Amino acid sequence: MIRSTDNDKLKTIRKLAQKRWRDKLGLFAAEGEDLVEAAERAGWEPRFVLRAGVEVEPELLTAVSALGSGTRAIGVYEQRWAEPAGDLSVWLHAVEDPGNVGAIVRSLHALADGTAILGPACADPYSPKAVRASMGSVFARPPARAGFDELAGMRVALDPSAPRALGAGVEGLAAPLVLCLGAEREGLPAELRERADAEVRIPLRADGPESLNVAMAATIALYELSAALRMAGHA
Amino acid sequence: MIRSTDNDKLKTIRKLAQKRWRDKLGLFAAEGEDLVEAAERAGWEPRFVLRAGVEVEPELLTAVSALGSGTRAIGVYEQRWAEPAGDLSVWLHAVEDPGNVGAIVRSLHALADGTAILGPACADPYSPKAVRASMGSVFARPPARAGFDELAGMRVALDPSAPRALGAGVEGLAAPLVLCLGAEREGLPAELRERADAEVRIPLRADGPESLNVAMAATIALYELSAALRMAGHA
Repeated sequence: MIRSTDNDKLKTIRKLAQKRWRDKLGLFAAEGEDLVEAAERAGWEPRFVLRAGVEVEPELLTAVSALGSGTRAIGVYEQRWAEPAGDLSVWLHAVEDPGNVGAIVRSLHALADGTAILGPACADPYSPKAVRASMGSVFARPPARAGFDELAGMRVALDPSAPRALGAGVEGLAAPLVLCLGAEREGLPAELRERADAEVRIPLRADGPESLNVAMAATIALYELSAALRMAGHA
Repeated sequence: MIRSTDNDKLKTIRKLAQKRWRDKLGLFAAEGEDLVEAAERAGWEPRFVLRAGVEVEPELLTAVSALGSGTRAIGVYEQRWAEPAGDLSVWLHAVEDPGNVGAIVRSLHALADGTAILGPACADPYSPKAVRASMGSVFARPPARAGFDELAGMRVALDPSAPRALGAGVEGLAAPLVLCLGAEREGLPAELRERADAEVRIPLRADGPESLNVAMAATIALYELSAALRMAGHA
């Protein structure tokens, strides 16, 4: 049982709260028993797992938690980066909030067969907040990294100002599709929108907010596009 | 210019991070210039607004921020509680995460004309995190509080185990609709699901997670139900 803060495993977990260290070590930490179980189910071998009251004093585990409030287990794993694959993927540009990135990884896993692909200036999907928001889907569907020009398939830009609404706007689309989303306020750069193969918006009320949260928008579009692909006879 | 922490306005903001004080004072704080602007647009008169470098020393404002990281403005407002109204509302049961409650307020505002109605054991929609996640929609659409039996209209339970999928499952529904959602893991209590007028699920992949994040699920269902109501000739 670890009873001292001066322990290498605890020090590693503390370091992994920082992107710099995650990049350097190629590792990340998953906090919570449910995430450690999700890793196991997905067949990931941990570097190590610390369970409160088993391998480590509970207070010491709480002290190194990046998320706080009574973590019962923390597992440390090697980062994996996938190659994009599947009929419906999502590509993110400058989505900086780790909670949104993680939520999109989870929604993609629930609704489509493809890969969460990170473009420039996105939050790290292996940050503690992103891993937690993915609820373990990051283990089942490791993310990929790619630029807009490296994307294979039809690139469907989602933007509140697109002339065609999702629904009618998805007719004629064929797999593989890559849904492309930009930052919450700025959206996708105009230059990328112009080069996309299709551009759609989610119909919003005129008296409502200008946009949805980016994870909400991604989730609706994945739901609608996966239904369109099913109708068209794809997986 | 406020230059001392020993200031009544700063003390009030600090108190409003706690539910106990929000309940007692009937007030809440909105952090960030965009939220203060959203309040103005929605015609809300603040009790007071403190802007960094105008009414208050920037460091002092940061020190009382519940969200942290360089808040430029904090406004304090009286809480408003609406009566449920509209063709499509959402009712929440034991949704404890303030970020999810706020995100649902925002999605509802973007996609439907109704009210976010809080049932038992939900996060406070006027907590700093919920207000921020609503991105100001809480000003345009103040939430309501009601029990399941007080809901007017058809109650549509959303649950991953419902036999009918959203889509075909929404045929025959007529406004006013109240989409009913439960906590992330537990879902709605079985007793309420049985008493709902309809029950639907979002079709998820067999190899994916058991459920979506509750705010994602709510958003997809609001999107689909609002489209169904439009098709049926309602607003």
